[in-house]
Amino acid sequence: MLKRRIEEKFREFFIKPLNIIEIESSIITPAKVFEASGHVKAFREPMVTCLKCKKKFRIDHLLQEQAKMTDTQTEKLNLNEIHTQMKEHKIKCPECEGDLSQPKYFMTMFTTTIGPYSDAIGYGRPEAAQGIFVEFKRLYEIAREKLPFGAAQIGHALRNEISPRQGPIRLREFTIADIEFFFDPKEPHCPQLRNIEDETLHLIPAAQKQSDKKEPIEVTVREALKKYIKTEWQAYFMVLARDFLKELGIPEDRQRFIEKLEWERAHYSSQGYDQEIYLDRWGWTEVSGHNYRTDYDLEHHKEHSGVDMQVFKGYDAPVLKEETILEPILAKIGPAFKEDASKLVDLLRQSDVQEVETSLKTKGVYKAGSFTVLPEHVRFVKKRTEETGRRFTPHVVEPSFGIDRLVYTVLEYAYSKREGRTVLKIPRELAPTQIGVFPLVTKDGLAEEARSLHETLVKKGFRGEYDEAGSIGRRYARADEAGTPICITIDYQTLKNHTVTLRDRDSWSQVRTEKDNLILYLQEYFLYDKEFKEMGKIVQPNGKP
Amino acid sequence: MLKRRIEEKFREFFIKPLNIIEIESSIITPAKVFEASGHVKAFREPMVTCLKCKKKFRIDHLLQEQAKMTDTQTEKLNLNEIHTQMKEHKIKCPECEGDLSQPKYFMTMFTTTIGPYSDAIGYGRPEAAQGIFVEFKRLYEIAREKLPFGAAQIGHALRNEISPRQGPIRLREFTIADIEFFFDPKEPHCPQLRNIEDETLHLIPAAQKQSDKKEPIEVTVREALKKYIKTEWQAYFMVLARDFLKELGIPEDRQRFIEKLEWERAHYSSQGYDQEIYLDRWGWTEVSGHNYRTDYDLEHHKEHSGVDMQVFKGYDAPVLKEETILEPILAKIGPAFKEDASKLVDLLRQSDVQEVETSLKTKGVYKAGSFTVLPEHVRFVKKRTEETGRRFTPHVVEPSFGIDRLVYTVLEYAYSKREGRTVLKIPRELAPTQIGVFPLVTKDGLAEEARSLHETLVKKGFRGEYDEAGSIGRRYARADEAGTPICITIDYQTLKNHTVTLRDRDSWSQVRTEKDNLILYLQEYFLYDKEFKEMGKIVQPNGKP
Repeated sequence: MLKRRIEEKFREFFIKPLNIIEIESSIITPAKVFEASGHVKAFREPMVTCLKCKKKFRIDHLLQEQAKMTDTQTEKLNLNEIHTQMKEHKIKCPECEGDLSQPKYFMTMFTTTIGPYSDAIGYGRPEAAQGIFVEFKRLYEIAREKLPFGAAQIGHALRNEISPRQGPIRLREFTIADIEFFFDPKEPHCPQLRNIEDETLHLIPAAQKQSDKKEPIEVTVREALKKYIKTEWQAYFMVLARDFLKELGIPEDRQRFIEKLEWERAHYSSQGYDQEIYLDRWGWTEVSGHNYRTDYDLEHHKEHSGVDMQVFKGYDAPVLKEETILEPILAKIGPAFKEDASKLVDLLRQSDVQEVETSLKTKGVYKAGSFTVLPEHVRFVKKRTEETGRRFTPHVVEPSFGIDRLVYTVLEYAYSKREGRTVLKIPRELAPTQIGVFPLVTKDGLAEEARSLHETLVKKGFRGEYDEAGSIGRRYARADEAGTPICITIDYQTLKNHTVTLRDRDSWSQVRTEKDNLILYLQEYFLYDKEFKEMGKIVQPNGKP
Repeated sequence: MLKRRIEEKFREFFIKPLNIIEIESSIITPAKVFEASGHVKAFREPMVTCLKCKKKFRIDHLLQEQAKMTDTQTEKLNLNEIHTQMKEHKIKCPECEGDLSQPKYFMTMFTTTIGPYSDAIGYGRPEAAQGIFVEFKRLYEIAREKLPFGAAQIGHALRNEISPRQGPIRLREFTIADIEFFFDPKEPHCPQLRNIEDETLHLIPAAQKQSDKKEPIEVTVREALKKYIKTEWQAYFMVLARDFLKELGIPEDRQRFIEKLEWERAHYSSQGYDQEIYLDRWGWTEVSGHNYRTDYDLEHHKEHSGVDMQVFKGYDAPVLKEETILEPILAKIGPAFKEDASKLVDLLRQSDVQEVETSLKTKGVYKAGSFTVLPEHVRFVKKRTEETGRRFTPHVVEPSFGIDRLVYTVLEYAYSKREGRTVLKIPRELAPTQIGVFPLVTKDGLAEEARSLHETLVKKGFRGEYDEAGSIGRRYARADEAGTPICITIDYQTLKNHTVTLRDRDSWSQVRTEKDNLILYLQEYFLYDKEFKEMGKIVQPNGKP
């Protein structure tokens, strides 16, 4: 439920305001798609096998662990260089200390066959993006043939990791949220920019990364666009990504964007920033990637499938163009060049018109291959054309989030201790359970009253839990541990004057509220950030457990 | 978005009210799981290859098409019988009329390898249920070790169909919503039953199905539980499923539950009903399955993994039990039977105590194998034990929905025509776009006013679309076609008196409303079914386009 809430928050943050089209495509994808996208060639990791215990490992990880190389360093090495480094640093099997094989590449997409034919290879998608690119033309139509527009997909992706570790950080199967945002490279302006260009970003640009100073610099978006970020839409999404993570509970000083060096970037990327956040458990960890994929993917699909991926953009008014055309005069060329005449005509067609004209004017001749062309052999004709628009392949920026890492991140940042108890301070709109409903005791009709209130709240759309087991203090403690923001207790007073007690997870304070106001107040609390102390009359201002 | 809304509705209908635990497990699953569950053996379809064009087909489908057999009939056939039927009905390749090969089975799970080792086989899950069963013990703990409880999963499932047709009805990859509801087979009572036992269900029980009368019978739940449905929880979920489909727009008389005959049932099912709905395009079509899986899955996982899947249920008070124990008197048996003594002792241990006692009392001897036992060889001791509870494997009923089929179903039932126009009457809470916001014209500040209202509504959580292209009539038409329930138009009057026009998709009537009331009214409309005509002052009572 927490994961679903984070996905929902993602939708509210990115998809709804930008009117992005959310689609769902298949996870198992015909091989052709990933051949075209370049993944079959590029989606691989260097692997070694232990000659003694036969276990297999990612050799770049072993170099990082045993030779203290950075991932930036190992990423740069080819197989030969890896082998040299292995020998130099005497890398051994981490499990049995055995000798290791030569490194080779292992393709990290899951492979299967689709249907009963053995040649119909399918791959598990390592990203959801390709499902968007191959449907670009349909999506463009749905967007009413206007740029810019975005398409998104939240779904499972598969990476057949050689030896995954780090729990939720490196999974073979995970949920990815990919947005592909298409724009005209000649009109790359992001209208939302004016609202954010004075805000600052914490960046580690490529140059900084290669120096020894690893601290991020703080620059305004305006500044960043001059020096560090190639396109406005990418800067815009980076600001959104920072704010999104803030709403998940991660303060800005625990976030940074670190640029990928050329050899670290994915094959489709012309600029890439990773959004990293600091985790107590794993240090700086990537939670989203921001890549400028240009027209790489659409161009490659066009090439492989033959499907036109270009769009046509009409000018406001047609543009008149005057061109000079070169016309060979066959009546003169024929007799002069005889059997070579048609060869010369071909050569002239491929020549630069301006060049021929200048040469004839200044030198009186033009050399086309071994032929000498005289002014009498050609004529220059002015031609007017009307251009109503232009055809081009849109460019793409891509923000891409790993949802499972966000789940872990939210949990780590929400985890707190108070008087020896665990309190999970999950932001209220993400809480899997919003409301606990407890009868003070189960007798005298209190349980029935509480159950009926619980049922009403669930019908009104709240995620509520009814609990009557154990003392009220124990039930509050359980709710704190599960991150339930508000608990409602039904007691004897409820039966008399229709009021209930509301108890706040974060302050442990309590208010007393008319039951009739409850639904409205809870809506305001969960939808519009009403403050807890405005939810009723304070009966316990500050928190005893 | 429509699909997400249907999933959300499923959660509101089944998951929230029953406090079901929603989980997410991996789609690619280690082979062992599906070996244990029986899928590796049972998840297969009979296939033939055309000897001429080499295409492959499901032979049961060809028998249905070319020999007019029903699926109930083909389901019963083994490979030899299929072959006989093929010859008898002269079944040919449907594409080239070529002769067909002998039938063989094709396993319809996608196969892959997990990680770099070729023996680590993985299958694409054909159902989400197994991800719940293998985690049963953890889920039981989360449910605070109480029965009954349910666990659910909404996610992708894969079936490597031989030759899928029928578009969204038979996909190789689809979204399944599985609920596994665990209960104590000795306490199978469903407390919610009393609210629904007088409601009626449209059933075609097995006996009826085998007769020629194919019409469903209408019986009360109470009656159905006596004759046609084995467990209360299953009946309860069937009623919920019917109501769920009604809320998606499918009237009750277009729904029925049809029982699976013994040979049609999945290998794990001891009783199964398919919920079918009538589609104009494909006739009666299954949208959910309701299976009584008993303890089949948990028992099989226990057997294969060695992990205990039993639960312990404490009695309210310990039960005292008095047992009679048979004790061989070794001092007598030893000398009497010598080297056979220990053999006799073993035999006696396996004997029925009651039987030995009766035999010795009435006949004076007891024959244990070839040995003759006399009263002096044994003694009977009364022993008291205290039983604090019992251990058992829970039973499971499973409602399982195909979400993609529901998407198609909702579209077909929502599709309507009015004065030559398409109007998609999607139930309002499922509508992908809830609100269209239109400026009457784009000049004089109307566009800015409309854009700002659109932004406000999106911030308040509504799914809204801003549209300024074309005449207002054309924009209404587009909204009708997309199923947007309400359109808001900003006109010159808006600038004067802060009122806007609301227009209803279904009646084409219009009301005028204060902008200040808008958010509250829209919430009431979408959350609590407020009627459209109560949304303001009627300005156009009935629908011109």
